[in-house]
Amino acid sequence: MSKNGAILVLSGPSGAGKSSLIKKIEDHIGAFYFSISTTTRPIREGEIEGVHYHFVDQKEFKQDIEDEHFLEYALVHGNYYGTSIKPVKEALKEGKIVIFDIDVQGHDAVQNRLGDITTSVFITTPTLKELKHRLNARGTDAKEVIEGRIEMATREVQRITEYDYLVINDDLDCAAEQLKSIAQASRLKMPSMKISEFIHEWEENS
Amino acid sequence: MSKNGAILVLSGPSGAGKSSLIKKIEDHIGAFYFSISTTTRPIREGEIEGVHYHFVDQKEFKQDIEDEHFLEYALVHGNYYGTSIKPVKEALKEGKIVIFDIDVQGHDAVQNRLGDITTSVFITTPTLKELKHRLNARGTDAKEVIEGRIEMATREVQRITEYDYLVINDDLDCAAEQLKSIAQASRLKMPSMKISEFIHEWEENS
Repeated sequence: MSKNGAILVLSGPSGAGKSSLIKKIEDHIGAFYFSISTTTRPIREGEIEGVHYHFVDQKEFKQDIEDEHFLEYALVHGNYYGTSIKPVKEALKEGKIVIFDIDVQGHDAVQNRLGDITTSVFITTPTLKELKHRLNARGTDAKEVIEGRIEMATREVQRITEYDYLVINDDLDCAAEQLKSIAQASRLKMPSMKISEFIHEWEENS
Repeated sequence: MSKNGAILVLSGPSGAGKSSLIKKIEDHIGAFYFSISTTTRPIREGEIEGVHYHFVDQKEFKQDIEDEHFLEYALVHGNYYGTSIKPVKEALKEGKIVIFDIDVQGHDAVQNRLGDITTSVFITTPTLKELKHRLNARGTDAKEVIEGRIEMATREVQRITEYDYLVINDDLDCAAEQLKSIAQASRLKMPSMKISEFIHEWEENS
C-alpha cells in the first residue's frame, strides 16, 4: 500500500494560535500541503497573495462557485471564503497531509465530502478571557471585528464535539507537540476506501 | 481540565509483533498502564504470573464472571481470557493511558462500555505469508496452535474497519513511531463526557 494522503482540519477561534502552531509543526511533517483559501475579504497589512490567501473579488468568487471549483465555501462577516478542489486532490494523490484552516461550517462540508480520510482538531485558548486578551494584544483588528470574532468563538465552541481532537493552546511548544502527534496519526487512520484492496493483497501473499 | 486518561486497544494476529511494539513505546509514554489479562490457559515457558497474565483456573474465572469483575471476557481456543475492571478505573482516574492487548471480540466489548475514551489500533504484518513465517520462526507453538492462529488472523483481518487506526508492522522502529503518535494523540481525543464542563469553564473565565 502506498503512503496514504490525509486531511487535517484545524478549526478554532481567530486568536487561538492556529497559524503559529502550523508554522511550528511544518518542519516536522515532510509531505505536507497547506491548503490556501480563496477570499473576497480585503488584504491585511503584512499579508501576501498566494501565501495567506488568494485574494479575489466577489465577481470572480461567484464564478468559481458556479463552476463548482470549491470543495467548500462560506460567507463569514460579509466576506466569502472557499477551498479549491484541484490542488487538494493532487496533494492527496502524492500522499501528502493536506492541512485546512477552516471554520465549523467548512469542517461540516469537508466532513461530508471527504470524511473517510479527514481528521479534525479544534484548537482553542484555555479560556474565553485569554482569547479576548490575545485578540486585543494582537492589535490588528478594529474593535467591532474583535467583537465579531468573540461572538463567533462562543458559538463555535458549542460545536467542538463534532471534532475528533481537542488541543488547548496554553503553552505553544506543548500544543505543537500534541498537534504533531495528531498529524502523524492522521496518516494511519483506517483507510476504509482502500481496505478491501489491502485485505486482498494481504491474503494474496500467503 | 486535568490530564485525560485514555484507553488504547491494540488488536492483531499473534505474531504481528504487538508485545515488541508495546515494549518499544513504553519508555516514551510516561503515564502508561498495561492492562494484564486474566486467563485459564496454561502458562508458557518464560511467562511470569502478573506480568504476562494472571493465570487462574476455570473455577476461579467463572466466579469472577458471576461477580461482574470483568470489563470483557472471551473464550478463545478453549481458554478464557478476561480484563478486570478495577485496575483500569484506577489508572484512568490517575490520567494514565491504559493499553489493552485484546482480540476483535474484546475490542467490541470495550468499545461498547468505554468507546468515548477508546482509541483502537489494528496491528498486522504486511502479508499473511510474513505472518506464517514469523509464527513458525518463533518456535513456541505447536503446529495445530499455529494453524489456529492463522485461521483466526484471516477471520480477524476482515473486521479491521472497526478500528480507528491501522499499523503495518514491517519495520519495527517505524511501526513503533507510528504507534507512539497514536498513543499520544489518544489523550487528546474529544472528551465528550467532560465537554459541557469544559465549555462552562471556558466561558466562565471571560
